[in-house]
Amino acid sequence: MVPLGSIGPLYLDYNATSPLAPGVLEAMLPFLREEYHNPSSASEAARPIRQAVEVARRGVAELVGARQPNQIVFTSGGTESIHAAFHMALATGNERRKIVLSSVEHSASKGAAQTWQERGYEVLALPVDSQGLPHLDLLEETLAASPVALVSWILANNETGVVLPDPQDFAERVHRHGARLHVDAVQAPGKLPLHAQDWQVDWLSVSGHKFGAPKGVGALYERVPSPSSPWLQGGGQESGRRGGTENVASVVGLGAAALRAHLQANDPTFLSQWEALRDRLEQTVLEAIPGAGIHGQAAQRVPNTTFLSIPGQPAELLLPLLEGEGLLCSAGSACDANHWAPSPVLLALGVPPEVAAGSLRLSLGPQTNQVEIDRAAEILIRVFRWLAQGA
Amino acid sequence: MVPLGSIGPLYLDYNATSPLAPGVLEAMLPFLREEYHNPSSASEAARPIRQAVEVARRGVAELVGARQPNQIVFTSGGTESIHAAFHMALATGNERRKIVLSSVEHSASKGAAQTWQERGYEVLALPVDSQGLPHLDLLEETLAASPVALVSWILANNETGVVLPDPQDFAERVHRHGARLHVDAVQAPGKLPLHAQDWQVDWLSVSGHKFGAPKGVGALYERVPSPSSPWLQGGGQESGRRGGTENVASVVGLGAAALRAHLQANDPTFLSQWEALRDRLEQTVLEAIPGAGIHGQAAQRVPNTTFLSIPGQPAELLLPLLEGEGLLCSAGSACDANHWAPSPVLLALGVPPEVAAGSLRLSLGPQTNQVEIDRAAEILIRVFRWLAQGA
Repeated sequence: MVPLGSIGPLYLDYNATSPLAPGVLEAMLPFLREEYHNPSSASEAARPIRQAVEVARRGVAELVGARQPNQIVFTSGGTESIHAAFHMALATGNERRKIVLSSVEHSASKGAAQTWQERGYEVLALPVDSQGLPHLDLLEETLAASPVALVSWILANNETGVVLPDPQDFAERVHRHGARLHVDAVQAPGKLPLHAQDWQVDWLSVSGHKFGAPKGVGALYERVPSPSSPWLQGGGQESGRRGGTENVASVVGLGAAALRAHLQANDPTFLSQWEALRDRLEQTVLEAIPGAGIHGQAAQRVPNTTFLSIPGQPAELLLPLLEGEGLLCSAGSACDANHWAPSPVLLALGVPPEVAAGSLRLSLGPQTNQVEIDRAAEILIRVFRWLAQGA
Repeated sequence: MVPLGSIGPLYLDYNATSPLAPGVLEAMLPFLREEYHNPSSASEAARPIRQAVEVARRGVAELVGARQPNQIVFTSGGTESIHAAFHMALATGNERRKIVLSSVEHSASKGAAQTWQERGYEVLALPVDSQGLPHLDLLEETLAASPVALVSWILANNETGVVLPDPQDFAERVHRHGARLHVDAVQAPGKLPLHAQDWQVDWLSVSGHKFGAPKGVGALYERVPSPSSPWLQGGGQESGRRGGTENVASVVGLGAAALRAHLQANDPTFLSQWEALRDRLEQTVLEAIPGAGIHGQAAQRVPNTTFLSIPGQPAELLLPLLEGEGLLCSAGSACDANHWAPSPVLLALGVPPEVAAGSLRLSLGPQTNQVEIDRAAEILIRVFRWLAQGA
């Protein structure tokens, strides 16, 4: 495993991406070496490879709370899963020409909506409250006003960590008006139990590299597996829903990481310890930095994430200094990291641009420990004071 | 490396998939271990990862004969590359509502065409001659008859190995009528030199696992990189053309395999030795099995592929017996291996169904040697005779 904390920089950007979880690379290696056959081959030699893919499918089914493995379609990651869900929901076409999502979605969901807007759908981004939670009355009003084909909502916000409360109730409201629901659960695995089937969501997306599987692999849960709107038509893989030779090694890695994340998300002791570490970091920073705050603090959040506002210090100044001191975190979504602008998520929460611009997301990994948390807080406070004195 | 031939079964199904080429896993491993950062992160720690992705992009640009690296978009494989090309060609919409392809395309191209047929495009599959080559007059007539948006054509047939002669001339004909050209080059890397830019094709698709890179990664060459019809909208990766965190380790593997394949495809000595091995196999089989034949023999073929017709013996009987004797090959496309039916490619060449049903594709790897070829021929002939005597 990667030695974190003790030697190299302290990595607290797990929501951006994670190293492989213990055992994942070892699970993958045989499929990068001798077990290279094409799982679609009719040969006996391909049988163990097909089986490994199906074992991984069961692992992911377990993780998301599916009823059966064939509800899982493997993809190349979260963005593809989300686009596939939109495709499956909208490609067959119907009279409902409206897509509803929240104003705090990840750019992948916004992008998928944009794609379908260009194909003639109306897209409505609903405002959220100051914590990022939905206004359920507004949702129902919107659904009642004109026929909506698809609602897409984020389960655990990638920046604030705020969790959609009661997805089952949310899905019921969506279904009551004849719409279908896609849930972006990319930041959820390992952090909260997932119950896709019980929640009755129609689609749910996950991405491997957010929970210890490699980059470039993900999955989509489909409530009703239907080959009528295949996402990628081709060789008939994934029961005809997603053509293309299976990414065997990464799928096996996904399955291994999924089982681990499933156990972790259903271990209340672990989750509360994780949360306590995060809370300790927050408390230390809030006590030491006057005017510091936590976005989404009043809502339920995943235990590993904190989005801190540091008054008067733009993240674009803070981050390189923090990295110089050995602390890696981010200003929000990694996907938006190439252009310095206040987080659109924070702006949607009503946070003033200057506060949004001075906000730092720290996200813990499953193995982050108290020594690291204390070191992170110490670095943060030291850099803040240094900048504040210089100002 | 995988010990092929000497101990385990003799693998002659490289067109279905290949083991990793020498050095590829070693190039990937750092990115599955310590170099795990998100390439989109603004941190210094992410810089080497971004650089590794760009080095790989240059490798693939070299392989396909691009003018510049930003003509390369990384994807999850051949099927996705092909769908992305169709999307880029057709998503913006125009008055041209027709797609033309050959009757011998891979199921991925047929599938992409089917997807756009469902969106209102007319799809025309042009017949080919008995070798699988285009009737250029028919192509031009078709292009002249009504406005065509996109022509999609396979460069090296996955089953017969037959190569499209003079892609530059082909592209000129397509462009003369205002259409654009996608070339499915999935079976070409390492087998013939690629000159996407000189040929002036608009898009060209490759898939990593066909030339020694891992499964689940591929690339699309775009003649004119344009973010106006992004394939997957999201975090802005791949210059906005394909969102989603980069599949770093596999992309690095793709780059390493691409450089190797590029050298190989431009080494006439290697190619002719490879071809001589394939020809030796064919000659031995043709001499020993009365009535045996070679599909596409009169055309130029990639050097590693032979599609043999074995009279009177259905492949579905032959293949398990051959595997039992230690020889792995296939009855055609691996993607169609789950249902026993005569190869659609052979039927399109006018091959009678009973001959098509008794055809075997053998495809050599870069390290296949003469001992293995002789052993393969010996096994084939022995199994054939055994079956023929039993009949």
